[in-house]
Amino acid sequence: MFQLLQTDPSTKARRGRLITRHGVIETPVFMPVGTQGTVKAMSPDELREVGAQIILGNTYHLFIRPGMDVMRHFGGLHSFMGWDGPILTDSGGFQVFSLAKLREITEEGVHFQSHLDGAPCFLGPREAMEIQAVLGSDIAMLFDECPPYPCERDYAARSLERTLRWAAKCREVETPGLKFGIVQGATFEDLRRLAAEALVALGFDGYAIGGVSVGEPEFEMLRAVEYCEPFLPVDKPRYAMGLGTPPQMVEMVARGVDMFDCVLPTRLARNGTAFTSRGTINLKNAPFIYDKGPIEDGCLCAACRQFTRGYLRHLVKAEEILGLRLISQHNLYFYLGLMERIRRELEAGSFASFQQSFTAGYATHEIIL
Amino acid sequence: MFQLLQTDPSTKARRGRLITRHGVIETPVFMPVGTQGTVKAMSPDELREVGAQIILGNTYHLFIRPGMDVMRHFGGLHSFMGWDGPILTDSGGFQVFSLAKLREITEEGVHFQSHLDGAPCFLGPREAMEIQAVLGSDIAMLFDECPPYPCERDYAARSLERTLRWAAKCREVETPGLKFGIVQGATFEDLRRLAAEALVALGFDGYAIGGVSVGEPEFEMLRAVEYCEPFLPVDKPRYAMGLGTPPQMVEMVARGVDMFDCVLPTRLARNGTAFTSRGTINLKNAPFIYDKGPIEDGCLCAACRQFTRGYLRHLVKAEEILGLRLISQHNLYFYLGLMERIRRELEAGSFASFQQSFTAGYATHEIIL
Repeated sequence: MFQLLQTDPSTKARRGRLITRHGVIETPVFMPVGTQGTVKAMSPDELREVGAQIILGNTYHLFIRPGMDVMRHFGGLHSFMGWDGPILTDSGGFQVFSLAKLREITEEGVHFQSHLDGAPCFLGPREAMEIQAVLGSDIAMLFDECPPYPCERDYAARSLERTLRWAAKCREVETPGLKFGIVQGATFEDLRRLAAEALVALGFDGYAIGGVSVGEPEFEMLRAVEYCEPFLPVDKPRYAMGLGTPPQMVEMVARGVDMFDCVLPTRLARNGTAFTSRGTINLKNAPFIYDKGPIEDGCLCAACRQFTRGYLRHLVKAEEILGLRLISQHNLYFYLGLMERIRRELEAGSFASFQQSFTAGYATHEIIL
Repeated sequence: MFQLLQTDPSTKARRGRLITRHGVIETPVFMPVGTQGTVKAMSPDELREVGAQIILGNTYHLFIRPGMDVMRHFGGLHSFMGWDGPILTDSGGFQVFSLAKLREITEEGVHFQSHLDGAPCFLGPREAMEIQAVLGSDIAMLFDECPPYPCERDYAARSLERTLRWAAKCREVETPGLKFGIVQGATFEDLRRLAAEALVALGFDGYAIGGVSVGEPEFEMLRAVEYCEPFLPVDKPRYAMGLGTPPQMVEMVARGVDMFDCVLPTRLARNGTAFTSRGTINLKNAPFIYDKGPIEDGCLCAACRQFTRGYLRHLVKAEEILGLRLISQHNLYFYLGLMERIRRELEAGSFASFQQSFTAGYATHEIIL
């Protein structure tokens, strides 16, 4: 399932290959997020054009709408949305805890109300895995509780114990593809280690680090990964959930992470924000009014090959759909291109120096080029 | 400039060819509307894919935003928006009277406030033509007053006189492309005739019928065209502004009209409404939930080749951008395909029977297929 092709001599970075029912994924990999059965503003053809190897689907959202009868009728998410590449689905746990209303957590799962119409719903480990089976997921994630940040140690420990009991239940449910465990444990080193060891003892096809990118400072995010990593098997892929900014991903790769997903490229695009190798720019800003250059010089994405910053600024200001479409395309091309670059640097044995120069050259705040 | 290739033996329909600086247009033609320098939700590549020969730009909107300094800086609308085919621009008259606030009409033009920020603006015949020259329009429309429906005869007559005085002024302003006069006169036969004759006496490259599709019943719309048509030269193109539904366009072609523009295909798409040869369907409707068929059987547009009604319904219900993108593509493909069909029927001498069968088969209200 996973081939570890190369390990970096001076960091923990890894070059790998993950084989799924719908295709081979070269890692490190970034996975565009298709919450409601579509990566926002992008067509499947455009996803292939920008270089997506695998995309995400959200169990919670698809369970709420269009619902499992529809998904079953259409034979799963691949055929429903017209994407024949690999799909990873989350378990719905994160959304149940972040989006849904009036939750009641029991040993069996979570009672909640749909964020759309308040309808009463239930998701537990069995249900979450069965839904992912219906979706035809190539990589199904275990149903877990994602504790908030900050989180008291007591709650984190009790929550983790339940998440691990759920993990054992999830393991028993048959799904057509791979199954990844999710390491929780909040900001506590011993809990993270305990979680990693317990999940590895159960045995999964890959391991995710969950409970990151939930509002904690960046050093806590990196530490959470550092806490888990030594206890994860080298021959299985590691996935840091919901991450991140470009330098965060580079740092995570250096810490041994292989897979990422994040809404930033498409979410920020809808606000006029574009990624460049030096940082983000907001195309709404006045300096771009007369700018005849592309979003980033040398970028070969569809937006940069054909359109100027000045035109994109106009589209964003006029709230035209083409504007956010083009910036979404550019941003995903940038994220996927960064991962391709990382893979090449790993192959060339030059990842560490790339890591240093990329991080040094990337502004953490919005820039004006 | 215009070649009349063929006239229909049993109707007034015409097959023609209009030559512009940016390309040749086969008529009858439908022109997608790109109000703010983009046809809503469509990229220029997609416009070519759906078969657009020429698109519209709106003087009023581009004058307000991004403004003429920007348009001048970018060398006109073609290069600004990345469309190298022909562009027709309206004169801004229609929007000044329908969108802008606090208008004061004088002999020189119209003082108004921007609908965006209330800024005081002025557009007159000279300004409108100069703006269209800056935009690099291939077909510039004369600045006119479009009287509302219903309209008293007295006002219609006085308004028309001023519009004709403005027409003479517009004629004097140099623009790089063709110039079309606009026949006004509201619902009054003699005023329509007067307008047509006066404009023809001045001499323009084409003639538009304005003041239609402003809320009048359909028979008034058709009559307005019938009133003008006999007084328009056969060797110049005729353009019915802001029209229409598919059967309205077919009927207008039969009455000797060559050119159409309308926001319906893209505007209705954003509401989930798709065109078919039997009428419109609204993809939000429940019967489509489990529907595995394309929007229209046999349609070769990008949406129908790849996606089901069930998936499109989900996208529309979830307010996902891909949904309105795909329906916009389908609707424009349908409109442009209808015009292509009309041209072929004209060439084959079978337009009249097509007109009859199409109109009979097209429901005027939303249908369930």
